[in-house]
Amino acid sequence: MSDKAAAKQRFINVFDGLVEELKEILISYKMPQEAIDWFVRNLDYNTPGGKLNRGLSVVDTYAILNNTTADKLSDEEYKKVAILGWAIELLQAYFLVADDMMDQSKTRRGQPCWYLVEGVNNIAINDSFMLEGAIYVLLKKHFRQDSYYVDLLDLFHEVTFQTELGQLLDLVTADEEVVDLDKFSLAKHSFIVIFKTAYYSFYLPVALSMYMSGISSEEDLKQVRGILIPLGEYFQIQDDYLDCFGTPEQIGKIGTDIKDNKCSWVVNQALLHASPEQRKLLDENYGKKDDVSEQKCKDLFNEMGISKIYHEYEESIVAKLKEQIEQIDESRGLKKEVLYAFLAKVYKRSK
Amino acid sequence: MSDKAAAKQRFINVFDGLVEELKEILISYKMPQEAIDWFVRNLDYNTPGGKLNRGLSVVDTYAILNNTTADKLSDEEYKKVAILGWAIELLQAYFLVADDMMDQSKTRRGQPCWYLVEGVNNIAINDSFMLEGAIYVLLKKHFRQDSYYVDLLDLFHEVTFQTELGQLLDLVTADEEVVDLDKFSLAKHSFIVIFKTAYYSFYLPVALSMYMSGISSEEDLKQVRGILIPLGEYFQIQDDYLDCFGTPEQIGKIGTDIKDNKCSWVVNQALLHASPEQRKLLDENYGKKDDVSEQKCKDLFNEMGISKIYHEYEESIVAKLKEQIEQIDESRGLKKEVLYAFLAKVYKRSK
Ligand SMILES: [Mg+2]
Ligand SMILES: [Mg+2]
Ligand SMILES: [Mg+2]
Ligand SMILES: [Mg+2]
Ligand SMILES: [Mg+2]
Ligand SMILES: [Mg+2]
Repeated sequence: MSDKAAAKQRFINVFDGLVEELKEILISYKMPQEAIDWFVRNLDYNTPGGKLNRGLSVVDTYAILNNTTADKLSDEEYKKVAILGWAIELLQAYFLVADDMMDQSKTRRGQPCWYLVEGVNNIAINDSFMLEGAIYVLLKKHFRQDSYYVDLLDLFHEVTFQTELGQLLDLVTADEEVVDLDKFSLAKHSFIVIFKTAYYSFYLPVALSMYMSGISSEEDLKQVRGILIPLGEYFQIQDDYLDCFGTPEQIGKIGTDIKDNKCSWVVNQALLHASPEQRKLLDENYGKKDDVSEQKCKDLFNEMGISKIYHEYEESIVAKLKEQIEQIDESRGLKKEVLYAFLAKVYKRSK
Repeated sequence: MSDKAAAKQRFINVFDGLVEELKEILISYKMPQEAIDWFVRNLDYNTPGGKLNRGLSVVDTYAILNNTTADKLSDEEYKKVAILGWAIELLQAYFLVADDMMDQSKTRRGQPCWYLVEGVNNIAINDSFMLEGAIYVLLKKHFRQDSYYVDLLDLFHEVTFQTELGQLLDLVTADEEVVDLDKFSLAKHSFIVIFKTAYYSFYLPVALSMYMSGISSEEDLKQVRGILIPLGEYFQIQDDYLDCFGTPEQIGKIGTDIKDNKCSWVVNQALLHASPEQRKLLDENYGKKDDVSEQKCKDLFNEMGISKIYHEYEESIVAKLKEQIEQIDESRGLKKEVLYAFLAKVYKRSK
């Protein structure tokens, strides 16, 4: 097993223990067996199975902040920080179960979406609630005695609400049925991706490990937020770019943003620079479910040089982020290395 | 305006202010206008409009614990305790928006269910999340400086999770499509109603006002829980009884539990005492959508004397609760009157 696979396995082993703990709590409530089985299946089906980048990054950040590497952490310390990682994965599971219902998606992580599993249907709504509920059960059990417990709760609440705000704006902006490109704008795109993705995927893991490391002054949290939020935005812009311009081998799937009428960075850039004729082509073809319309959009994006705009954006944002990281004040224990590690993960995705 | 109407109006006025506060927070995030408007409409459509019993009982309990009446509270103190009341109403709104989707209900409080409102549909899932999210935004804004802030958070998390557990068991027990009376039992009924209703409707309002009053030792919380949980169970048993045996004038609606295949106290009592022939009648008619089947079930319930069993249960539980209330230790500031007030509200409903 490679080091990376071993690290992932150790993280997954913690999850199996957490499912047992949650099960025990339901047993202590004398919850009937069929409901316990259902909850365990909900947890197992929806929480692991992804790349676990967010959860693992809590552990890795914590190790950097404490001048060590994850593999050197004792089992006890490892478990505690890994619980914070799994709390993010549970938060993501909560969002994804619901998002798939709202988007009427069919598959997630190579299996049917939870709400499409036989016998589940709309029970998936309550199941998503319970995935979120599990976060607070676990935080209380493992962190109630810590001085930063209330900060963890405030942070989860804040980031959860921000993600819901991003989701709301996404939902009212990009109706799959009614295509109206007037609703799109780069400003809205920026708001959606920052709120829907950047806070919980980039800021949350670092902030959690900072609290557990005792490096959590408002100045330090502000320093990392100032870098991780634009980095998260860059990550999503890259995701949008690759959906349209990446090969299936590169992205591991076939992009569908054009057909899905997504408020993507690519279409927003095109809208910004489009002549009246080009705009007309987009109005007539963007968000249509057929291959011909999709290809017309792609041809237009190529003709407009969106790829070049993307690469210029990428070089410029990466340079800017590096400059910002260099200016970080490490005097209270924060480490530039934390931010460089995040930047490297995003930058190398497309290289 | 009657005293009761004036009290309700003062409570509702606080809500209007809270919606403004929540709006301001979205504005401070620079959230686009259409999403702000959507959130405000979500709050207004789903939160007030009910009887507000749960929210108002926080205020009333707080007044009793502080040797005063609600109308004598200063505007500042009133607003603070009313926020806790609205936090319960938001929690209920969160559950009801989702419950109506899961039950495919058509109306709620005399208007179409939120998910059936033009343009809403599945966005209602994220809207329910945001109703819950609003609780923590408001608690942080108004209680962050208080010593019991973390207790409020723990309490909301615990009760939320308990309610979700009750909802889960309800969903896996009473499938509207597949009628299987073997899934029902009085023990399951008791678990469902305690978890789905009693914790958030009875224990939560009292516990919140106890924290704000500084009367919140674990002994005192345990004392009230020991009375409010069986009282909440009695309330729901009464609700089930009235759904079947109450007149439309009495209950303000036409009961549908039989047709809806509800795991009601009434059918569970019947199952407990049914002869093989009576059981056969239930298997063949309970949960069917037609009036004839429904009437057959009602006739059987009458023949089996379920009404008499209910009245015996009611007299016995009321006597027991009174006895328990009499034994309450008031030495740390808790008041029997709090519990008598709750009991009176439930007992008089059917008298
Ligand atoms: Mg989606
Ligand atoms: Mg979506
Ligand atoms: Mg994408
Ligand atoms: Mg319902
Ligand atoms: Mg229901
Ligand atoms: Mg009822």
